[in-house]
Amino acid sequence: MTRKHKVMALDAGPPDRLEPEIAEYFRKCEEKLGFVPNVFRAYAFDNAKLKAFILMADDLMLSDSGLSKTEREMIAVAVSAINHCHYCLTSHGAALRQRGKDPELGELIAQNYRAAALDRRQKAMLDFATKLTEEPDKIEDTDRETLRKAGFSDRDIWDIAAVASFYNMSNRMAAAADMRPNAEYHYWVRERSEETAPAALKRQPGPAPVAASASPRRRSARGD
Amino acid sequence: MTRKHKVMALDAGPPDRLEPEIAEYFRKCEEKLGFVPNVFRAYAFDNAKLKAFILMADDLMLSDSGLSKTEREMIAVAVSAINHCHYCLTSHGAALRQRGKDPELGELIAQNYRAAALDRRQKAMLDFATKLTEEPDKIEDTDRETLRKAGFSDRDIWDIAAVASFYNMSNRMAAAADMRPNAEYHYWVRERSEETAPAALKRQPGPAPVAASASPRRRSARGD
Amino acid sequence: MTRKHKVMALDAGPPDRLEPEIAEYFRKCEEKLGFVPNVFRAYAFDNAKLKAFILMADDLMLSDSGLSKTEREMIAVAVSAINHCHYCLTSHGAALRQRGKDPELGELIAQNYRAAALDRRQKAMLDFATKLTEEPDKIEDTDRETLRKAGFSDRDIWDIAAVASFYNMSNRMAAAADMRPNAEYHYWVRERSEETAPAALKRQPGPAPVAASASPRRRSARGD
Amino acid sequence: MTRKHKVMALDAGPPDRLEPEIAEYFRKCEEKLGFVPNVFRAYAFDNAKLKAFILMADDLMLSDSGLSKTEREMIAVAVSAINHCHYCLTSHGAALRQRGKDPELGELIAQNYRAAALDRRQKAMLDFATKLTEEPDKIEDTDRETLRKAGFSDRDIWDIAAVASFYNMSNRMAAAADMRPNAEYHYWVRERSEETAPAALKRQPGPAPVAASASPRRRSARGD
Amino acid sequence: MTRKHKVMALDAGPPDRLEPEIAEYFRKCEEKLGFVPNVFRAYAFDNAKLKAFILMADDLMLSDSGLSKTEREMIAVAVSAINHCHYCLTSHGAALRQRGKDPELGELIAQNYRAAALDRRQKAMLDFATKLTEEPDKIEDTDRETLRKAGFSDRDIWDIAAVASFYNMSNRMAAAADMRPNAEYHYWVRERSEETAPAALKRQPGPAPVAASASPRRRSARGD
Amino acid sequence: MTRKHKVMALDAGPPDRLEPEIAEYFRKCEEKLGFVPNVFRAYAFDNAKLKAFILMADDLMLSDSGLSKTEREMIAVAVSAINHCHYCLTSHGAALRQRGKDPELGELIAQNYRAAALDRRQKAMLDFATKLTEEPDKIEDTDRETLRKAGFSDRDIWDIAAVASFYNMSNRMAAAADMRPNAEYHYWVRERSEETAPAALKRQPGPAPVAASASPRRRSARGD
Repeated sequence: MTRKHKVMALDAGPPDRLEPEIAEYFRKCEEKLGFVPNVFRAYAFDNAKLKAFILMADDLMLSDSGLSKTEREMIAVAVSAINHCHYCLTSHGAALRQRGKDPELGELIAQNYRAAALDRRQKAMLDFATKLTEEPDKIEDTDRETLRKAGFSDRDIWDIAAVASFYNMSNRMAAAADMRPNAEYHYWVRERSEETAPAALKRQPGPAPVAASASPRRRSARGD
Repeated sequence: MTRKHKVMALDAGPPDRLEPEIAEYFRKCEEKLGFVPNVFRAYAFDNAKLKAFILMADDLMLSDSGLSKTEREMIAVAVSAINHCHYCLTSHGAALRQRGKDPELGELIAQNYRAAALDRRQKAMLDFATKLTEEPDKIEDTDRETLRKAGFSDRDIWDIAAVASFYNMSNRMAAAADMRPNAEYHYWVRERSEETAPAALKRQPGPAPVAASASPRRRSARGD
Repeated sequence: MTRKHKVMALDAGPPDRLEPEIAEYFRKCEEKLGFVPNVFRAYAFDNAKLKAFILMADDLMLSDSGLSKTEREMIAVAVSAINHCHYCLTSHGAALRQRGKDPELGELIAQNYRAAALDRRQKAMLDFATKLTEEPDKIEDTDRETLRKAGFSDRDIWDIAAVASFYNMSNRMAAAADMRPNAEYHYWVRERSEETAPAALKRQPGPAPVAASASPRRRSARGD
Repeated sequence: MTRKHKVMALDAGPPDRLEPEIAEYFRKCEEKLGFVPNVFRAYAFDNAKLKAFILMADDLMLSDSGLSKTEREMIAVAVSAINHCHYCLTSHGAALRQRGKDPELGELIAQNYRAAALDRRQKAMLDFATKLTEEPDKIEDTDRETLRKAGFSDRDIWDIAAVASFYNMSNRMAAAADMRPNAEYHYWVRERSEETAPAALKRQPGPAPVAASASPRRRSARGD
Repeated sequence: MTRKHKVMALDAGPPDRLEPEIAEYFRKCEEKLGFVPNVFRAYAFDNAKLKAFILMADDLMLSDSGLSKTEREMIAVAVSAINHCHYCLTSHGAALRQRGKDPELGELIAQNYRAAALDRRQKAMLDFATKLTEEPDKIEDTDRETLRKAGFSDRDIWDIAAVASFYNMSNRMAAAADMRPNAEYHYWVRERSEETAPAALKRQPGPAPVAASASPRRRSARGD
Repeated sequence: MTRKHKVMALDAGPPDRLEPEIAEYFRKCEEKLGFVPNVFRAYAFDNAKLKAFILMADDLMLSDSGLSKTEREMIAVAVSAINHCHYCLTSHGAALRQRGKDPELGELIAQNYRAAALDRRQKAMLDFATKLTEEPDKIEDTDRETLRKAGFSDRDIWDIAAVASFYNMSNRMAAAADMRPNAEYHYWVRERSEETAPAALKRQPGPAPVAASASPRRRSARGD
């Protein structure tokens, strides 16, 4: 299907001339993932837009946080499930299978996190992300308080909100532009044993952030 | 009410030490608007997050586009109306009253754009932004085609989608953190004559983008 | 825009010959507000309909009640926000700014009352009005009991319900007929100081009820 | 069940002393229906509220209109079905069975009007009433135009809207107060032959309007 | 209206040659109900489909269970009310009036079970059936636990779920095919006294199951 | 996690003594799939329920139809995606990957069929299944007519409806009981080449129907 050879349904213009910083970022994607994610190619018609998107995405998903990187992928995937986002369920579903080293859990969150045997903390985290996605206008103090009681700091709540909100943006961008994920994602971490993920991914699960601006002040609580 | 003196309900940490670039941006806000928008103060606990947010927001709302700046504010406000976002309706409602030089139209879009006598182009633009907000999973080729028939290029469609998607993020961030808008916004451009907006706003309606990266390749179609 | 010169999109017929009682009511509107609200002009093609509407509206909003007049406007505005009613948000938003003597709170309720620092009583009142608007079929004894615990009598609950229900009617009537509010409303009570509202409004905030039938048996609890 | 002996769940106060006009109206109800509808008893704690309610209801349902009385009952019932209103489905379901002289059609509209073999006019009428009930904020010119194409005048559209809007109010009032319909309604016009309805109802299907103010200018198009 | 003479809008083919077992089942329907329910005639183009449907329906509604047959009809009717299913509200509304020997309660559940004065057990049962109908993806352990606390065994919960799920299927099948219920249902048990139901129905409220496979292990808790 | 070793959250009783016919069916499942699907084990506490479920499921998914078996799995998966059903997305997602011999398409339908490049026929099929799932009460003649115009016979429409309706039942049953799919499904047909599916599956993709009652009258249109 020729459709697969386009990264999206919109013809937003030819690729911009990549800034050196972005070109280097793309090179690292190729090296580590084996490809440049199509979402970046979709944004590549304009360096400013691409750079802002990468900066924000990498900061949210990779910088220090009280949420583990796996937990952030869980939020990304749970939000994308509500919004039925083909692109993000494929790419972040793959990332979650890889991060969580559990192909079954990755699928499960992409289907319905309520069917997972999550601990209270992660259940509260995804309940909040869900309410924020479905009825943002109904968030109240009690919702924040529930997260605090589940062990989250205010800074953690910010991060839960920021990841959930970002995918509410990305899901819509992917839907509006009909972005198509790289086919490779489908085949990541599908084997029963977790020994099968590509070595590169294991060592360093994504490209380094474009700007290493996040200060080392805070450590991820969950071993990544 | 002491509440008004906090910028949000979350205590995400003390302000980060502002990078010089950001400090200068804040200084310009003070100069031109008379204040630093509270959303920036909310993000200020972390320079990386603040910078990514400003870069993306300014690129979307201020860089060259086939959409006028007024049209982009219309989208911001229409999306925020669906999500009932107090912060964004206040700040972008003010911006739309100011950009559109029409206090009544600004209010109207914040209430229900369907009551406005919009031309076909702008009606189609807000219809798309609405569907993308309410049921992103149901966007189809026909929705993009409707925009093309209303005169939008594929690049314009990207911009409509990008602004609508961004406010779906921002609305949720404001809801999750309970951000409170600067009170000044309430009083912008409320007089019947459009001669009353602060002079600074008239000459230059917002601070310059942090990074002037947008090439001058494209012109706004609608006089701003 | 010629549109502004019509009071609605429907041509329901020429104005009926006003009954003397109604003509006097209109004269008082002119005197006190400076104009006859367009909703009355929309109904004016038929005296019977106009009279029933005015009788009901004035009884609900102006007669004795355990709810203050400001609280009744809060309900009107909160319901109209859910229904995105241009006419009612404009007219009752203005009335709420005027009654509450607080332009910011008026806006806030028109955007999302959950962002306001309401006391428990008023929060419960608007939560009930919201549920009654959004899912009337799910009201149960527990909902009435929650209001009682927040300090409302059964008669107060009736009044909350009656105001919320009435605006669920009016919002739909305004939407169906595309009623356009008088432009004057936009400019009411927009200044920071509450000293600026027109004197007439301050002394007597609306025309007297057509029929002064409400017995003086009950006093408004909240200073109006 | 003692529950049945109360007309609603709220104790809004003892009955007001009925005005003579209302007392006469109640007497006629007893004479013609065999009972005073419980909704009137619920409102009877306050003459002003009761009178406004009766004036509006009678004007909408009984005065001259381009809509037949049966059509107005169809709207009442279709709206009440969406809102799952026990009181109104019982009382107006009975009225519709009686007006339409067809127990099966009455039930059908109370269940789902889309299953009825309605003509284009009545289908358009109920489609509009449904949209106005479910998403009033999305009514647009095209919706009014569809009604015009189905043969309705602008004045008819007003009446469709007014009846649909009124039952959006009444349904909510009944839900909020938990009003219980008179048991008699259940047994109206349940026989296969239409010859069985009480004679009084046949001759004169409801009490005369309180105020016979509607001028005889317009005739009902549909034989009643 | 010729419409009434067809059992559905689809022409799925001529009736299959009835298997003897099914022919006997139809004969018993005629004998006991006076007619073969139209849903069976709709399925009769294919014996395998018809047989599977009857087996499942009869097992769910007539075999031993901790739920009384009346309770199972309550679930069927409450689910059908949510889905606004003309066929099932008519046929199971009739069955519920007959089983419950109360024409008013039957109507009430078909309108809104929340208006009924149900005991805690039955309220919990219908609340669960409603949530399962409206948002099946949000069922959690706490929902099952609420049923256990209301006195239901796990096996009972299965049965509540099975009946509610089955009518979510049947309602959709009836909607898709536009099935029309036998007119007779309208007239069942409409009289105030419960003495009027056809004798056959009283003695044995439906045809015996096709396959009498349910072991007599469990007794219905509620007198049927 | 011990959770994985239970087939559902309900303890509905010990397995019934399997009827010989069912025991043979289970043996064939073991032989062909390598396991008995957990949904059957969930139903196994009662032979009558299990048998009715298998009869209906096998008839719908495996008997002759104008819909190919792949198309029927597409419907099952698309409906389960709307209902976010973990069990059915896992089991029928696997079946669809296997039937369609395309791991990517299988995933895509489980995420959002609108992102797939479906032909008009299959698009119309899934649009109908979606509407029937989301708003069954709004199905009208025009919906059936759209399917006819896309090439479906009335009998095909029945089958589309029957499969979509069945999974609206099964999804709810799985949600209510918290059924957990066999882990093996996760690993079916995940390789890029379609040559990798287990041989048994390829030759004969599921166990034979319990009752081979479907007459060979009609052929599947789509090569299976």
